[in-house]
Amino acid sequence: MELKKGLEDVAIKETSITFIDGELGRLYYRGYSVYDLASFSNFEEVAYLIWYGKLPTRKELEDFRKLMAEERKVPDHISSFVRQVSRNANPMDVLRTAVSMMGLEDSRDGDTIQKAIKITSKMPTIVAQIQRTRRGQDLVEPDPNLSHAENFLFMLHGEKPSSTDVRSMDVSLTLHVDHEMNASTFACLVVASTLSDIYSSVVAGISALKGPLHGGANSEALKQFLEIGSPDNVEKYVLSRLSSGQRLMGFGHRVYKTMDPRAKILREYAKQLSTEKGLGELFEIAQRVEEIGIKILGNRGIYPNVDFYSGLVFYALGFDPDVFPTIFASARVVGWTAHVDEYLKDNKLIRPKAIYVGDLGRRYVPIDER
Amino acid sequence: MELKKGLEDVAIKETSITFIDGELGRLYYRGYSVYDLASFSNFEEVAYLIWYGKLPTRKELEDFRKLMAEERKVPDHISSFVRQVSRNANPMDVLRTAVSMMGLEDSRDGDTIQKAIKITSKMPTIVAQIQRTRRGQDLVEPDPNLSHAENFLFMLHGEKPSSTDVRSMDVSLTLHVDHEMNASTFACLVVASTLSDIYSSVVAGISALKGPLHGGANSEALKQFLEIGSPDNVEKYVLSRLSSGQRLMGFGHRVYKTMDPRAKILREYAKQLSTEKGLGELFEIAQRVEEIGIKILGNRGIYPNVDFYSGLVFYALGFDPDVFPTIFASARVVGWTAHVDEYLKDNKLIRPKAIYVGDLGRRYVPIDER
Ligand SMILES: CC(C)(COP(=O)(O)OP(=O)(O)OC[C@H]1O[C@@H](n2cnc3c(N)ncnc32)[C@H](O)[C@@H]1OP(=O)(O)O)[C@@H](O)C(=O)NCCC(=O)NCCS
Ligand SMILES: CC(C)(COP(=O)(O)OP(=O)(O)OC[C@H]1O[C@@H](n2cnc3c(N)ncnc32)[C@H](O)[C@@H]1OP(=O)(O)O)[C@@H](O)C(=O)NCCC(=O)NCCS
Repeated sequence: MELKKGLEDVAIKETSITFIDGELGRLYYRGYSVYDLASFSNFEEVAYLIWYGKLPTRKELEDFRKLMAEERKVPDHISSFVRQVSRNANPMDVLRTAVSMMGLEDSRDGDTIQKAIKITSKMPTIVAQIQRTRRGQDLVEPDPNLSHAENFLFMLHGEKPSSTDVRSMDVSLTLHVDHEMNASTFACLVVASTLSDIYSSVVAGISALKGPLHGGANSEALKQFLEIGSPDNVEKYVLSRLSSGQRLMGFGHRVYKTMDPRAKILREYAKQLSTEKGLGELFEIAQRVEEIGIKILGNRGIYPNVDFYSGLVFYALGFDPDVFPTIFASARVVGWTAHVDEYLKDNKLIRPKAIYVGDLGRRYVPIDER
Repeated sequence: MELKKGLEDVAIKETSITFIDGELGRLYYRGYSVYDLASFSNFEEVAYLIWYGKLPTRKELEDFRKLMAEERKVPDHISSFVRQVSRNANPMDVLRTAVSMMGLEDSRDGDTIQKAIKITSKMPTIVAQIQRTRRGQDLVEPDPNLSHAENFLFMLHGEKPSSTDVRSMDVSLTLHVDHEMNASTFACLVVASTLSDIYSSVVAGISALKGPLHGGANSEALKQFLEIGSPDNVEKYVLSRLSSGQRLMGFGHRVYKTMDPRAKILREYAKQLSTEKGLGELFEIAQRVEEIGIKILGNRGIYPNVDFYSGLVFYALGFDPDVFPTIFASARVVGWTAHVDEYLKDNKLIRPKAIYVGDLGRRYVPIDER
C-alpha cells in the first residue's frame, strides 16, 4: 500500500461541476470560463449553474432569486446567539456553531439542494450579524428586494452600497463559489459519504475552511500587508519571512502552478476599490509583495492564489480581516453542497487506511509492575 | 489519474496508534491487543495509552484521572442550550453544536492533547444531559470521585450503577476509542490539515460519525432488533430486507472481512446485561440475526461489526437508540484527537482531485437568448 501524502493527485470522484487547468491557470464552472462568468454573470446565476448544471432562463432566474431572497432571515434564537458571542469569538467558530444550530431543526430527510438554498441564503445574514456585533452596531434586517451581493453589503453597512461595491462583492462571491476537491469540499464529502446530513457536511466544510492553509489565508494575507505598513518595507519583510521558513500567505496552490485566474480578476477590483477608498498604499504594498514573491517563488510554481487579493477587496468593502473567511464560506457553500449532491448519486463510504509503523504484540503489564 | 473510490486501500499516513488485521479479525492499540485491554484495562488507562503511546504508571494514571474528573463540568450556557433543544433534536446534532460552542472560548493556540482531555471529559456530561432532557428529568452533576464510566452512568440515572453496568460501559468505551482511518477520524484529519483548530476537527468528526454507514449504525442495528420483535420473525425479516436491496445494519466493514473482534467481546456483555435486565428475547433476536446474516453474507466477507452488539449494551444500560451514536463519539474523540496530534507532526494539506467528465469551453449566452 502506497502512502499518498495529502492525497496529492489522487482522484476521489468524477465531476461535471468544476475543472481547473493548473498549468495554464484556467478555471471553468460547468464548462464556462470564470473570466466570462465574472464579466457577464452574477452570484445567483452562477449558484444556479453550479447546482443545476445549466444557466437559467429569465423566468427560472427570477423564481430562484425570489426563493433565495425569502430565505434570508435567520431564526431569532440564532441571531441572539450570534450577538452574545461575536464580540470575542472567532467569526468562523461562530458561523460553524450557527449553521450547526440551523441543522437542529432541519436535519431530517429532504432534498440536498433545497436545504443548500436555505443555508446559502442565510449565511450572509449571519456574517453581517457577526461583523456588526463586533463593531457594537445594531443588526440590519435583510432586504428581499436587493440582489444577494447588494443585500450582503446593505446588511453590513445599513445603507445602499455603491454600484462599484456591489459589483466587487458579486464578482468576489462568484469567484469563490467552487474549486473542485479543495480541503473543505472534501471534508463535506467525507461526512456525506456516511449518509450523514447536509448541515453536518456544511459544518465540516466551515471547520476545514477556517485553517490558514485554506480559507483562513485571505485574512492572513491582508494582515501581512497591514503589518508591512509601507511599500518600502516589502522587500525586507518578504525576504525575512521566507528566510525564517515562514510561508507567504496568499501564495501557492496544490493545483495551480502559475497565477490563479481568480487572483488576476480580483486584483483589478482590489485596485479600483482601494483607490476609491483611500487604500491606495495598501494596494501598492500588495502589488510589491506579488512582484517580489513571484521573483523568489515563481520558479517553483508558487504564485498568488485567490486569497491574495480577495482580502483587500473585503477590507475595502468594510469587513474586518478576521471576518473574511466567513465571506469565503458564504460563497463556497454552493460548491460544498453541489459536490455532496453529485457524490451521493453514486455514494461510497470514504475510508482510507494508515500504514502501521508502531510496535506489535506488546504484552499487557499490570500497573504495579510497570 | 486513477479514480480511488471511497479511498479504498489508499494510505493517508503512517501511524503508530492502531493496527487492524482485517483478515484475522484482530485489533491492537499501540501494539496491545484489544482482547487484553478489554480484560485488564479501563477507559482512562486506554485513553492515556492512545494519547501518550505508553501505559501509565500508577502515579501517572492517578494524576490523569484526577485531571479528567476535574474537567467534567460543562459551562452553564451550554447546559441550558442542551436542555432547550434536546426534547426534539437529533442527539448528534446537539452534541455537534455543543462541542462547537465549547470551541468558541478555547479555539486559540494550545496543546492538542490538553484540549482533547477537556473535550473528552465533558462529552459524557453532555450526552447524559441530552438523554435526561429527552426523558424530562433534571440534570445530575458529575461526581469527580467516580471513574469515567461509572460517572457516565451515574449522570444518566442519578444513582450509583451496579458493577456489571460499570464494567460493561467501561469495556464498551474502551473498544470504541480508536479504529485507525475510519471516516470520522479522517474527517478530523482533513480539517486539521488546513491548520484549523481541534474543536473544528472534533465537530467534523461528530458530523461524520452521525451517518448510518458509520456510528449511526449502532442505533439502526438496535432498531432492527426491536422491529423484528420476536426470534421467530428473524429469518423472514433478514431475507426480505436483503432481497429488497437494503443493508443489514451492524454488518459489513471496509477492513474486516471476518468477525469484528469488538463484536465478539461486546456480544458477551450484551448477553450478560440483557439477561439481567429482562431483555433476553432481544438478545436472542440479535443472535439469530447474526447467525442468519453470516449464513447469507459471510461468504462475501460481510460479518457483524462493532455496532451490531454495542447498541444492545447501550440499550440495556438505559440509553435511547437515538442517543447511542453520541456515546460512540464520547469514546472515539480520543482517537480523533490522537490522530490529529500525530498528523500535525508532519502536516500536509489533504487535497485530492476529481476527474472532470463534463463539457468544456461552453460559451456564455446572454439570458434573453437562452
Ligand atoms: C496552499 C498550500 C498549502 C499548497 O501547498 P501543497 O501543495 O500542500 O505543498 P506544500 O505545502 O507541501 O509545499 C511545497 C513546497 O512549497 C513551499 N511553499 C508552498 N507554499 C508556499 C508559500 N506560500 N510560501 C513559501 N513557501 C511555500 C513549501 O514550503 C514547500 O517547500 P519544501 O518542499 O521546501 O518544504 C501552500 O501553498 C501554502 O501553505 N500556501 C500559503 C497559505 C495559502 O495561501 N493558502 C491558500 C490556498 S488557496
Ligand atoms: C460499513 C460499510 C459501509 C462498508 O462497506 P464498503 O467497504 O464501503 O463496501 P460497499 O458499501 O461498497 O459494499 C460492498 C458490497 O457489499 C454489500 N454490503 C456491504 N455491507 C452490507 C450489509 N451490511 N448488508 C448487505 N450488504 C452489504 C454492498 O451492498 C455491496 O454489494 P454490491 O457489490 O453487490 O453492490 C458497509 O458494510 C455497510 O453499509 N454496512 C452497514 C452499515 C454499518 O453497519 N456500518 C457500521 C460500520 S462499523
